[in-house]
Amino acid sequence: MSKHVRLGPGREFDAVRALVGAWGSSAVGIGDDGALLDVPAGSRLVVSTDSTVQDVHFRREWLEPAEIGWRATMAALSDLAAMGASPLGLLLALTVPDDWRAALPAIASGVGAAAAHTGTPIVGGDLTTGERLSLAITVLGHTPRPLARSAARPGDTLYLTGALGGPGAALAAWRRGGRPRAEDRARFAHPEARLDAGTWMVRQGAHAAVDISDGLAGDARHLAAASGVRCVLDLDAVPCAPGVPVREALVSGEEYELLVAAPALDVTAFAAAHRGLALHAVGRVEAMPGDAAGELVAEEGGQRVALPGGHDHFAAP
Amino acid sequence: MSKHVRLGPGREFDAVRALVGAWGSSAVGIGDDGALLDVPAGSRLVVSTDSTVQDVHFRREWLEPAEIGWRATMAALSDLAAMGASPLGLLLALTVPDDWRAALPAIASGVGAAAAHTGTPIVGGDLTTGERLSLAITVLGHTPRPLARSAARPGDTLYLTGALGGPGAALAAWRRGGRPRAEDRARFAHPEARLDAGTWMVRQGAHAAVDISDGLAGDARHLAAASGVRCVLDLDAVPCAPGVPVREALVSGEEYELLVAAPALDVTAFAAAHRGLALHAVGRVEAMPGDAAGELVAEEGGQRVALPGGHDHFAAP
Repeated sequence: MSKHVRLGPGREFDAVRALVGAWGSSAVGIGDDGALLDVPAGSRLVVSTDSTVQDVHFRREWLEPAEIGWRATMAALSDLAAMGASPLGLLLALTVPDDWRAALPAIASGVGAAAAHTGTPIVGGDLTTGERLSLAITVLGHTPRPLARSAARPGDTLYLTGALGGPGAALAAWRRGGRPRAEDRARFAHPEARLDAGTWMVRQGAHAAVDISDGLAGDARHLAAASGVRCVLDLDAVPCAPGVPVREALVSGEEYELLVAAPALDVTAFAAAHRGLALHAVGRVEAMPGDAAGELVAEEGGQRVALPGGHDHFAAP
Repeated sequence: MSKHVRLGPGREFDAVRALVGAWGSSAVGIGDDGALLDVPAGSRLVVSTDSTVQDVHFRREWLEPAEIGWRATMAALSDLAAMGASPLGLLLALTVPDDWRAALPAIASGVGAAAAHTGTPIVGGDLTTGERLSLAITVLGHTPRPLARSAARPGDTLYLTGALGGPGAALAAWRRGGRPRAEDRARFAHPEARLDAGTWMVRQGAHAAVDISDGLAGDARHLAAASGVRCVLDLDAVPCAPGVPVREALVSGEEYELLVAAPALDVTAFAAAHRGLALHAVGRVEAMPGDAAGELVAEEGGQRVALPGGHDHFAAP
């Protein structure tokens, strides 16, 4: 089995040395079979793994190599944000086809930039050949009180960070054979994991959170199902990227914004604490009658309306 | 990004439900963006990631699907064994081509069997499509005192668990178009991570360890380089699988036995504590003069002899 990076001789090790060089001070403790980390006393350890695969999550012609590394890293870190956790470290399992070898330093620089931007040490990795470029990134974090998707309570308000629809609009443009608008492309190519927003939510007593990777409608359904509640989305209140209709914004995936169920929050204080990032109330949580399963419903102009489906990644883009 | 497993609707979720069903009580805390774990007080957290890729680490016709799952899991856990750590949990990032979909339950059962055999909870995962089957497995463990590959000291004895050469003999038979002997095939298809041996070594005051994934010669070189010492292998003392010459055993990779640098150990007590698994003294650690880099040398019949090279995984088998 090819292993955690090492500094012995050989072709694999030369490639690894180049990666570690590109990461500079973000690479920590590389060289043993496993990396060592310490979890602060009183904190729970949170771990998650997330893969980005060529022709499943992106096409080669859409992104620069550094953007592929940045995006895969932020997508993985977004799971920590949704738990309200601060990052402890990440591990990168890279599968690199021969025709991507020359792009490896740029991909690594994107991973390194996202790691440095979020203060996440790169503590290990693994490098193999394969048919398609793949980055499987495992993230570790810690939190005194994790946000669970099963903890939304009747009476909570649903809050959303940022605005939706940019990544979906970019994907739609690429699939038509066109070029996306610069701001939509940037939302797809250069997402930011909402780590500070997640820890702010923990401090403010929020109950539950998910990140919007499957689209707001799909992820709100997951939250409702896990918590056994009715989530009511107010479509008039959902913030959309310029020119994107709300029904497209609802199914735009790869957003990495947070949907949070919480008692009333101060959205002005949130924006002030997050360099202007917006927080919007987009709905409410209600009790389900008896033993009924959780559900998602939507309102528009005060009337119940039908909802589009979610975003299923297990199909090629 | 396809995420950590979830129980909402959709094709990905159906596949995940099948996996979680196959794992039974080994699957713990599946359903949130991240899994929660607690590290015992006074212990360090150890993490490592390891990928098994079709046509890089195995060929489809060599292994049954359940063996692929077992082997990939044990290969990943072997990194914890080499650190002297006990497992806390594992995460599985699976890439599954369409023509492997029918084998997914059997692959999952192999992962589940290895997890249950070692008492390792499966705490998360990720499922995507791709051209080749790939299992990227991240393992987490804890230890009060990690074994590092950089901690071998002059005066230490080098110890090896088990006997070497079976996996190399199996690979050689397959590459010739033949069929390996049953015992050699079993060593390749059904390895055991030496987790109990690793924690025993910690308790006995061992200094350094590596697992033999790149072949004894290659991994002893890594140990020597990381520790800045001379490792002297006694080729007459290296235990080999029946019929395997020592020079082939030295470069047989995928072994998952442990090479340990330690003060004198009781090999009889080791065997008694490990259901007869052998521990052999196979060499010694000496100081390097001045600022010289670490090196590996070998002796046979008391004479210095030349060594073959290591086992480089960054080439297809």
